Amino acid sequence: MKSLYQERLGRVRQNMKEQGLSQILVSSTESVFYLTGLWIVPMERQLALYVHEDGQCVLFGNDLFGITSLEGWELKLHNDADDPVADIAKTVRPGTLGIDKNWPSRFLIRLMEQRQDLRPVVGSAPVDDARKQKDAQEAQAMREASAINDRVMAQAVSELREGVTEAEMAARVEALFRENGAERSDEGQLVCFGPNGADPHHAPENTVLRPGDSIVLDIFTPINRYWCDMTRTVFWKEVSEEQRRVYETVKAANLAAEAMIRPGVKMCEIDRAARQVIEEAGYGPYFTHRLGHGCGISCHEPPDNSAVSEVIAQPGMVFSVEPGIYLPGKFGVRIEDLVLVTETGCEVLNGYTKDLQVLG
Amino acid sequence: MKSLYQERLGRVRQNMKEQGLSQILVSSTESVFYLTGLWIVPMERQLALYVHEDGQCVLFGNDLFGITSLEGWELKLHNDADDPVADIAKTVRPGTLGIDKNWPSRFLIRLMEQRQDLRPVVGSAPVDDARKQKDAQEAQAMREASAINDRVMAQAVSELREGVTEAEMAARVEALFRENGAERSDEGQLVCFGPNGADPHHAPENTVLRPGDSIVLDIFTPINRYWCDMTRTVFWKEVSEEQRRVYETVKAANLAAEAMIRPGVKMCEIDRAARQVIEEAGYGPYFTHRLGHGCGISCHEPPDNSAVSEVIAQPGMVFSVEPGIYLPGKFGVRIEDLVLVTETGCEVLNGYTKDLQVLG
Repeated sequence: MKSLYQERLGRVRQNMKEQGLSQILVSSTESVFYLTGLWIVPMERQLALYVHEDGQCVLFGNDLFGITSLEGWELKLHNDADDPVADIAKTVRPGTLGIDKNWPSRFLIRLMEQRQDLRPVVGSAPVDDARKQKDAQEAQAMREASAINDRVMAQAVSELREGVTEAEMAARVEALFRENGAERSDEGQLVCFGPNGADPHHAPENTVLRPGDSIVLDIFTPINRYWCDMTRTVFWKEVSEEQRRVYETVKAANLAAEAMIRPGVKMCEIDRAARQVIEEAGYGPYFTHRLGHGCGISCHEPPDNSAVSEVIAQPGMVFSVEPGIYLPGKFGVRIEDLVLVTETGCEVLNGYTKDLQVLG
Repeated sequence: MKSLYQERLGRVRQNMKEQGLSQILVSSTESVFYLTGLWIVPMERQLALYVHEDGQCVLFGNDLFGITSLEGWELKLHNDADDPVADIAKTVRPGTLGIDKNWPSRFLIRLMEQRQDLRPVVGSAPVDDARKQKDAQEAQAMREASAINDRVMAQAVSELREGVTEAEMAARVEALFRENGAERSDEGQLVCFGPNGADPHHAPENTVLRPGDSIVLDIFTPINRYWCDMTRTVFWKEVSEEQRRVYETVKAANLAAEAMIRPGVKMCEIDRAARQVIEEAGYGPYFTHRLGHGCGISCHEPPDNSAVSEVIAQPGMVFSVEPGIYLPGKFGVRIEDLVLVTETGCEVLNGYTKDLQVLG
């Protein structure tokens, strides 16, 4: 029986064949983890997997990564005093070589200086495309991460109080994630009160919660290497007619998009379904970003879920559905779930309520 | 009068001239901040400054970065639907082009496809070398960050108690940093009890503090964009003769290195001074890493402070002095300060005591 990693490598090789790439270098921490189970953050050091369609598999890395053997992979290790790409230059074959999109230029430049018979091309797609469709083990990890996100959201919403600042709530969400098993939370959580919510990327600061504020909570973290990512918007003490109208429009857009997700639908059609609800309510110009993004070992990864994405939904894909309306100077509303495409439709990974809530 | 940023750019141009680079692309968030004051984390998007020795300065960026004008810089902005390097391809001159060491390969490959008259070389040194010598404003920022580090260390040490875990102490240090003005702390703090301290990069977990443990606290965070980084080792309830001997050896190594730092000394000589103290005490094989690293807008940056570093200390350089002895299965001791090279010697930025402490 093939191991998990052999199966993943098989899918990558199949993608290489279809994309006309006979050899690739894989360097991102996330993609190396996907293919080996090793989580290595190389910092300034060099880490790359070499995959050839004929079956050759080599891991190039620094002694300090502490790898002594890896089933199915030939190891070529260097130390800090060595040229970090010398082994790669001795190994790769002439001609086209797919390069991981984020490989630092210093390594590529050095490799090209030593091997003028190479033609580097951007070559992340074979692994990125494999990672787009989660296998059973990955789908389960994402379910579990989102279940924790539901719990943290419920707890955070219950702790909202008059006079709290955005920054205090953001720190509290991070602490809750840690208490619930996230190793740690690298990115700041997004907590926006009132007019600040009209900026989709507003960073939490000392703004204080006031009656009539909308509260946008966009919270996300990796748990056991797989990300959760959810947004809810609630109101403090009171809600105006306009806030209610905007909220119900965003909720309807979120539900309309999720209702149509199934294998065979294009991502741009899903974006369209949400956008149309918002346009018909007269708020089209205030939905200023794409509908969503793929999510997995990276928080943002393929597939793109936008008006220009021709990607076709397939079972195992996980992406966000996060319509929003942003009224400058007034308030913002965003409602985001992660969804997993199934054989017949989709599984919404977030269970926390989307009913309008006025708290306090 | 020249502005701060004009002066920095002047130093970069001087370095370009000395290094024979007529044009460079600068892309790291930290280097862009150094030259413009803008802190932009481009994620998957494209950000680069173009600097030509003849005076041309162009910022290439995405509309979403929200930059509308920047004194002294021509702006060329693209959006998500554009080729992110098209403007660069239209701008750069034929021949050698210095490329920031971490520029993602996908951009370099696309640029080379459009401009076969370019010869890319690794070209971070003009900016990295300028950043090595902190100007007055930067030196002050680093003093202030380290003063906060002293306070957080004192508070953390005072809160050590029987039964606390490494992970709890690490979380507490992060909270203390935030309370003291750090925007946030991205990297996990290093807190190691007993035998775990023998691994210089041990990640905090559920190990519980016990009598006779050494406690290695290596704590660091950016504050107003500049990093602090300090290590102290203390003991819980009791200290053995061997622990005391190792501690005093590491302390003597730290002091010996700091005592010789002044302009004109080579970094490898500083490393040697510390290493010699440890070798003479018979622990040479147990000091397993370099003496230190440059520190500034990045936690680890040039100059390298190691046995192979020929860099000559110059006023304004800031780097760590962090000798350690690691006895596998037993315990570890490390004592780290940041130092700022002055005209006549060095200023040790950390004031927290290095006297042996047995607590509890």
